[in-house]
Amino acid sequence: MKVLIKDIEIISMSPSYPSVFKGNIGIEDQNIVFIGEVPSTFNADKVIDGMDHIAMPGLINAHTHMAMSLLRNYADDLPLMTWLSEKIWPVEAKLTSEDIYYGTMLSIAELIKSGCTSFRDMYFHMDEVAKAVELSGVRANLGEGLIGVADPDASGIDKVRNLYRELNLAADGRIVIEVAPHAPYTCPEAYLIKCGALAKDLDVPLHIHLSESRFEVSESYKNFGMSPIQKVNELGLLSGKTSGAHCVHVSEEDIELLRKTGTSVLYNPSSNLKLGNGFAPIQKMLNAGVNVALGTDGASSNNNLNLFEEMHLAGLVNKGILEDPTALPAYEVLKMATINGAKALGIDETVGSLEVGKKADLILLDFNQAHLLPTHDLISLMVYSAQASDVDFVMCNGKILYENRQILTFDEQVIKEKASIIARDLISRI
Amino acid sequence: MKVLIKDIEIISMSPSYPSVFKGNIGIEDQNIVFIGEVPSTFNADKVIDGMDHIAMPGLINAHTHMAMSLLRNYADDLPLMTWLSEKIWPVEAKLTSEDIYYGTMLSIAELIKSGCTSFRDMYFHMDEVAKAVELSGVRANLGEGLIGVADPDASGIDKVRNLYRELNLAADGRIVIEVAPHAPYTCPEAYLIKCGALAKDLDVPLHIHLSESRFEVSESYKNFGMSPIQKVNELGLLSGKTSGAHCVHVSEEDIELLRKTGTSVLYNPSSNLKLGNGFAPIQKMLNAGVNVALGTDGASSNNNLNLFEEMHLAGLVNKGILEDPTALPAYEVLKMATINGAKALGIDETVGSLEVGKKADLILLDFNQAHLLPTHDLISLMVYSAQASDVDFVMCNGKILYENRQILTFDEQVIKEKASIIARDLISRI
Repeated sequence: MKVLIKDIEIISMSPSYPSVFKGNIGIEDQNIVFIGEVPSTFNADKVIDGMDHIAMPGLINAHTHMAMSLLRNYADDLPLMTWLSEKIWPVEAKLTSEDIYYGTMLSIAELIKSGCTSFRDMYFHMDEVAKAVELSGVRANLGEGLIGVADPDASGIDKVRNLYRELNLAADGRIVIEVAPHAPYTCPEAYLIKCGALAKDLDVPLHIHLSESRFEVSESYKNFGMSPIQKVNELGLLSGKTSGAHCVHVSEEDIELLRKTGTSVLYNPSSNLKLGNGFAPIQKMLNAGVNVALGTDGASSNNNLNLFEEMHLAGLVNKGILEDPTALPAYEVLKMATINGAKALGIDETVGSLEVGKKADLILLDFNQAHLLPTHDLISLMVYSAQASDVDFVMCNGKILYENRQILTFDEQVIKEKASIIARDLISRI
Repeated sequence: MKVLIKDIEIISMSPSYPSVFKGNIGIEDQNIVFIGEVPSTFNADKVIDGMDHIAMPGLINAHTHMAMSLLRNYADDLPLMTWLSEKIWPVEAKLTSEDIYYGTMLSIAELIKSGCTSFRDMYFHMDEVAKAVELSGVRANLGEGLIGVADPDASGIDKVRNLYRELNLAADGRIVIEVAPHAPYTCPEAYLIKCGALAKDLDVPLHIHLSESRFEVSESYKNFGMSPIQKVNELGLLSGKTSGAHCVHVSEEDIELLRKTGTSVLYNPSSNLKLGNGFAPIQKMLNAGVNVALGTDGASSNNNLNLFEEMHLAGLVNKGILEDPTALPAYEVLKMATINGAKALGIDETVGSLEVGKKADLILLDFNQAHLLPTHDLISLMVYSAQASDVDFVMCNGKILYENRQILTFDEQVIKEKASIIARDLISRI
């Protein structure tokens, strides 16, 4: 299948091109085969007119818990421990594999419709999530959430090993199985060491929550005499294949450790604010040379999986907290939602920017909208003005997933209805 | 014309009803004539099925500069004074009345499509803005921006008096003319006193920027030995008919003055953050009993006129800054975008909530969306999950302005094209 996207404004996110330029994009099977002039030998099976549209890489949601969409708007405006212990955990204890499948499918519908082609999940029943990824056509790094304190015989480690054998690089290479110990405060030292060893053994990424709340960090100092980031570094878990989700309360020393080891930070502005955790010092991390990617966290602490909202928030709150309108300029924010996300997920050789030879993960936005005109600056437009609903075309791995505002790979209405029934039932179970 | 909205989830924002309930809404001509059961005598000319929809009051944008949409995404990520003196002011100096008309129409298109039925404008050529309000069918408080330092003979005062004579309560009562001195740092004392006297004389609201930036407040202490809020209070400008836009850098004493005088605060979270001004202590103001309404500011410092985005941001950043997830709960945020806005604009007897006898300013949202399901809590949904694009029906003063995702009162495409041409031309003029 050969697709030609004609005469479109391109934000490639690749340093090989100007930040915005007008051109054509050719896709053959899974790959981008040209950007710019159309080669005379290219006979497209399908031509898409780029009028009033912007093409850019599919967004990458670098930290989420997909099936938590079942708990969207279920428990809000509560103190963190009340929220977790009285609301979230009791429901999570009742989640079946079917719940996870439909919750994940609901989230995939939201992701596709908001221009996201890759996500990184840390939750349960990753075999079910893999089915949803296979069917829907998106790309995902899947990490079975490993809660060391609830896994005395470390059977989770074997489960991940099995998932890797069965599913790594499945779905035409769209699935990456990774190792996802929940956090240093839910996994004992010996367990974390096993997780680190497993990730090295399988040569896959490691995904862990780090320094999300002030309380977590002070407890870590109390228990270990060091920060969570220092602790996992001591256990050998930080590396260029590791990502720490949140990293809100970090010291200069923590940032230096992240930089030195090449660890990526997964920034979740909505969740950090909504749960009252505070503001991660993102500009400082970027200045230090840390790779920062953007995530939504689960829909129950957001309450969306909308990377346009996260980009907008990231751009704004960092200027506010530093009282500096030049902080975190728009292009840096776009990088966090695209190429930096790909780096964090270890898939930047394949996706994260529009480049010849990369996989065709791309989205088109319609800028003929009252809230997007005039078009003085398309980079600013994308971060400060664009809405998820402006996305009207999504391709992943060369396959069209969304066109004319319809998801093509599954029946969205069926998923919405089934997930709604499951969500109601789930609450009644507790 | 009699309209019946049937079997719909209603968020009335009136203490006379539960926060959410299912019912019917009857509209006759400009007014809401019933909420709840349909009287047997009511024969509707038009029936709207409320399935999968929420009805709520039209949102109120309590602080904006409408025609600045022409400068959307024109100059971002710049230091405040560079932005103003090198980018914004040179363009504003070239704005014609035609520019203002089309810029305002573009903004009205954005407002209607994002569920906003009332706005409060402070800008220039208010006669042109009034034409746009008349044609489009929305409601507006219009304040010709009075820059005292650029108005040595105070001719602006007479201009406002004329605007009042010609346009106050025009367009079936949808237009309110008010007095809008720009700020204490751009209006000398004697000028501010004249503005205050004019507002009292005409018995209209007064709208002024107050304590937006740290620099402005420190200059005020340097020049007057007091804060901008204390200064305008000394000049007799604070009252239950006065609104201060921004109020970011306020002391306990400032908050007490706002409370004591009944002055409303117009909160613009996006703009405060984007320009690097910081975080207004909103929860503290609400605790003190100050009326806080929500605004977008102009599109050039936002870069949208999207109250769903402002609600979302307000809910989140106040939790973040206080590190308290219980701060600014969702219902308080909804009040800021509806009834509190109506109070600030002095139109709360007429609009701001769905109540029998009030004008029919209402919007419908379609919640059958992947990003809004399941529907555990419709109040949370509205603040944390809903997007402007979920609005699919807008009525103002009993007239349908937007239905089936089409603006009915003017040709949106013509406005978008004309405004885009004007915006390009405008930049070329400087």
